[in-house]
Amino acid sequence: MRASKLFARTLREAPAEAEVASHQLLLRAAYIRKLMAGVYTWLPLGLRTLRRVEAIIREEMDASGAQELRMPIVLPAEPWKITGRWQTYGQEMFKLKDRHDRELGLGPTQEEVVTPLVAGEFGSYRDLPVNLYQIEWKYRDELRPRFGLLRGREFLMKDAYSFDRDVDGLRSSYRTMFEAYERVFGRCGLDYRIVEADPGSIGGDVNHEFMALAAVGEDLFVSCENGDYAADVEAAQASTPEPAPPGDREEMVEIFTPGRPGIQDVAELLGRPAPDLLKCMLYDAGGRTVAVLVPGDREVNQNKVARALWPAPVRLFDDADFAAHGFVKGYVGPQKMSEDALVLADRSVRGGANWVTGANRIDHHVTGANVERDFRVDRWEDVMRVNEGDSCPRCGGRLHIGRSIVVGHIYQLGTRYSKPLKATFVDEDGTEQPYQMGCYGIGLSRIVAAAAEQFNDEAGLRWPKALAPYDAVVIPTNMDQAAVVETAERLYGELAELDIDAVIDDREVTAGVKFADADLIGYPVQIVVGKRSLQSGTADLKVRSTGQRSHAPLAQAARAAVDLLAGAP
Amino acid sequence: MRASKLFARTLREAPAEAEVASHQLLLRAAYIRKLMAGVYTWLPLGLRTLRRVEAIIREEMDASGAQELRMPIVLPAEPWKITGRWQTYGQEMFKLKDRHDRELGLGPTQEEVVTPLVAGEFGSYRDLPVNLYQIEWKYRDELRPRFGLLRGREFLMKDAYSFDRDVDGLRSSYRTMFEAYERVFGRCGLDYRIVEADPGSIGGDVNHEFMALAAVGEDLFVSCENGDYAADVEAAQASTPEPAPPGDREEMVEIFTPGRPGIQDVAELLGRPAPDLLKCMLYDAGGRTVAVLVPGDREVNQNKVARALWPAPVRLFDDADFAAHGFVKGYVGPQKMSEDALVLADRSVRGGANWVTGANRIDHHVTGANVERDFRVDRWEDVMRVNEGDSCPRCGGRLHIGRSIVVGHIYQLGTRYSKPLKATFVDEDGTEQPYQMGCYGIGLSRIVAAAAEQFNDEAGLRWPKALAPYDAVVIPTNMDQAAVVETAERLYGELAELDIDAVIDDREVTAGVKFADADLIGYPVQIVVGKRSLQSGTADLKVRSTGQRSHAPLAQAARAAVDLLAGAP
Repeated sequence: MRASKLFARTLREAPAEAEVASHQLLLRAAYIRKLMAGVYTWLPLGLRTLRRVEAIIREEMDASGAQELRMPIVLPAEPWKITGRWQTYGQEMFKLKDRHDRELGLGPTQEEVVTPLVAGEFGSYRDLPVNLYQIEWKYRDELRPRFGLLRGREFLMKDAYSFDRDVDGLRSSYRTMFEAYERVFGRCGLDYRIVEADPGSIGGDVNHEFMALAAVGEDLFVSCENGDYAADVEAAQASTPEPAPPGDREEMVEIFTPGRPGIQDVAELLGRPAPDLLKCMLYDAGGRTVAVLVPGDREVNQNKVARALWPAPVRLFDDADFAAHGFVKGYVGPQKMSEDALVLADRSVRGGANWVTGANRIDHHVTGANVERDFRVDRWEDVMRVNEGDSCPRCGGRLHIGRSIVVGHIYQLGTRYSKPLKATFVDEDGTEQPYQMGCYGIGLSRIVAAAAEQFNDEAGLRWPKALAPYDAVVIPTNMDQAAVVETAERLYGELAELDIDAVIDDREVTAGVKFADADLIGYPVQIVVGKRSLQSGTADLKVRSTGQRSHAPLAQAARAAVDLLAGAP
Repeated sequence: MRASKLFARTLREAPAEAEVASHQLLLRAAYIRKLMAGVYTWLPLGLRTLRRVEAIIREEMDASGAQELRMPIVLPAEPWKITGRWQTYGQEMFKLKDRHDRELGLGPTQEEVVTPLVAGEFGSYRDLPVNLYQIEWKYRDELRPRFGLLRGREFLMKDAYSFDRDVDGLRSSYRTMFEAYERVFGRCGLDYRIVEADPGSIGGDVNHEFMALAAVGEDLFVSCENGDYAADVEAAQASTPEPAPPGDREEMVEIFTPGRPGIQDVAELLGRPAPDLLKCMLYDAGGRTVAVLVPGDREVNQNKVARALWPAPVRLFDDADFAAHGFVKGYVGPQKMSEDALVLADRSVRGGANWVTGANRIDHHVTGANVERDFRVDRWEDVMRVNEGDSCPRCGGRLHIGRSIVVGHIYQLGTRYSKPLKATFVDEDGTEQPYQMGCYGIGLSRIVAAAAEQFNDEAGLRWPKALAPYDAVVIPTNMDQAAVVETAERLYGELAELDIDAVIDDREVTAGVKFADADLIGYPVQIVVGKRSLQSGTADLKVRSTGQRSHAPLAQAARAAVDLLAGAP
């Protein structure tokens, strides 16, 4: 490709709205252009990088025995209503109506399509297992799309779906995909971690996320200093301290705490540490009031609450809820909860006694509140958000919280979709059984962004060679000298013969502009030919990722570039 | 690929709603499955065929110098409103709103995206020409989706857009694409014709359609028996007979024609041929009444009327229009048309005199109506539909009407989009000029359907080898005989080494079922191994497209298959 023809106009500066390096650099280096919030056009350079990711994934999926198909993007609403996701996705799913007023959605994922499809084709245990995948654009109407490709509303995803006869089969299919994922992310050159994760609205039980480490990542994960535990912060658990031996039970006393609705305020007023206070958060779960209890120094993990109460949709009380149910915001306590409310306490609450908590009356709290005597707990669950420094649930080691970008997510769904969609096969014993399903996603456009986040410096992108749009660039520095141009063109031709996908920067611009663009775009190998090259009979070579510079005789320069590329990360 | 694993369950019968061969066979052979009207899932076999078409197109586009990018599917409404297509597409464009109530559409084509994109990147004449393409799913909410992939609501399209400095450049870019299209359709093996076409709602001037011949095609085209003229029926012209020498002008007389609103009825009543009658059709063009005149034996071509009146939206009068404007349906004549109405006559009307036409009064016509004396004509245009047997506009030869499937359409758009979207570049003389644009579409999913229409027989699909999902199938007929299975497996391995993409039909089903499926799916070469093969030491081979059968020694069977494939269409 000739740079003079390439549809790629690099920018000296990124638009102000680009806050993170990947977004800035992918814009500046002419990989992507914004069409509207969270929706991007992929320019030729960007598309080439995306296609390289796609080729890696396709190879590994095919090698794992998965079969590629292609499902529609525009989908009928009916099966989504059956599984309940028409409602749970809510506004996050793009919805529309066709000219006959039929409700449609743009696919955010495709369980509702693939499950009936497989049930229609494969009806016997003999047909199983089968694993189907596609690589297609997906849609989520994110409330706040941002960070360029990291949180987009249109994104390219590989989604695979396995169908097994039983749980053992599902585990085996899951393991196969797990290993294929390790190969995919390894080949992409990403620094990543595999963590246990929260299933979110997909549902199901066991699931793992593949997280590319990145300081700007929005996805927090917890990992043990001893390396034996890693989990998405939404799913992470910490070990619960042993309950203290029961001590004296104080009497419960109401105290005056004027204008102090916050935990910290009350703790200060009473001169007591925050862990002595009991935080009582109110939620609405499909119409039912739920009081969630955690120690005063901790946060409720709403995802854990939602999982505990699934499939009821869970939301925090708003002002109208407080008014409707007669609770006083900032002064809520679990005492005298009505029979139809649910009191859900974190397991760590079990060890405490003589709690300070709200008195359900403005400007008042109580001290000496105790479980059973003063308030009931209907269910004990893990509903707490893990903090930096908590104890590992495996070994008791110290837990750290890190930031990352989720690039892959795999789920053991079980019968979460096959049951409601009545997707069954006839087993060996003649009985009808729902498929045991797994689903497996990879965000291709996110991989590109994550790689750009991990591999850059002040000059631009430093792609691992597996993801670069071209392998090399040939830079003639003096376009006005015929001998320089001829030599560069000859080298460019030789690279093509050696199967190296190269760009020749034949633009009539200064050498400085060419060097800057080569660094910005991130060609793995640069080959520079100028006046001095002709005098010395050598070309200058540079490996972008390491900055390593070398020379090679002009006649061997193409071969030298091949060797440098082979040795590059 | 092993047939025992392949996600492909063939059907003995197609669903009743599948009316045409391509639809029936693509369903029966497990290439596609319907999700809803006009929207299909591509199963592994179908996707492989689609990808082969895609690879051919990508190669030819790249070879022509076009650059691939990828534009979004979900598009903001604003630029579509500027070009007017938000309205002209109307219900045919899928429309939706995002969570912030912003109007969006699903792209039916992408001029409104690519034009501002290029204007934002390439601002100088030095940057031109540039030709950008993508291969992506497109959306049209067809009123009556039917014939499977032939008229779908979601379809895969290659769309390219060229940007030139001037009309000469546009013509050159157009010519380059024209030739690339000939190579694409040639390589796909299609029997096709290139015809002059109507631009439809895309607009612009010169344009051509590439039409795959098919008896079930919905796209009619006209061609001259002498081969010097071919055009889409919507665009086709016929030569207009020379005006007869002016004869005597009869007087205009009103006559009583009770209950005879039709041309044929009146002609019979008066004993005069239909061409003596003047048909006067009323249209609404953006609020203005337009009377269109053609001889009584001809039909009005509404597309031609729409082009003549562009950009006003044109529709036939409905009952309310007749009532509102005081016209009597079935008895309309051009006499006494009000000043603000437009009278548009086909050029062939010029040669006639003493017309019989409506009297604008129920149950009455007039005879002896003459242009100028009795009614005015504001514009003479070609607005007539061409009939079988009309005269060629080039040579006067006889015109035929044929049926086809449009698989490609290329347009010289000129400044149709660059002007309203203010997409300009700075020319050599420092002036700002709008780009001269061309656009170039290929329907990939339609190519698959058109090929299935052209290449089938009662047993199934007979793909040209360029489009088959696999090159060959190896059929062991006796799965219970280890030697048969071993031999077949060895052959399957040898084919892989020879770079032949083969399927081995290792299913535990009868030989008859395997033969039927092999014919139905349409593998170009079949290699059969059975008990008799082991006795005779030979394999049976069959070329699907020709039915040609042969034998080869087992040791040479793989090589024989390669040779047969090379010789197959």
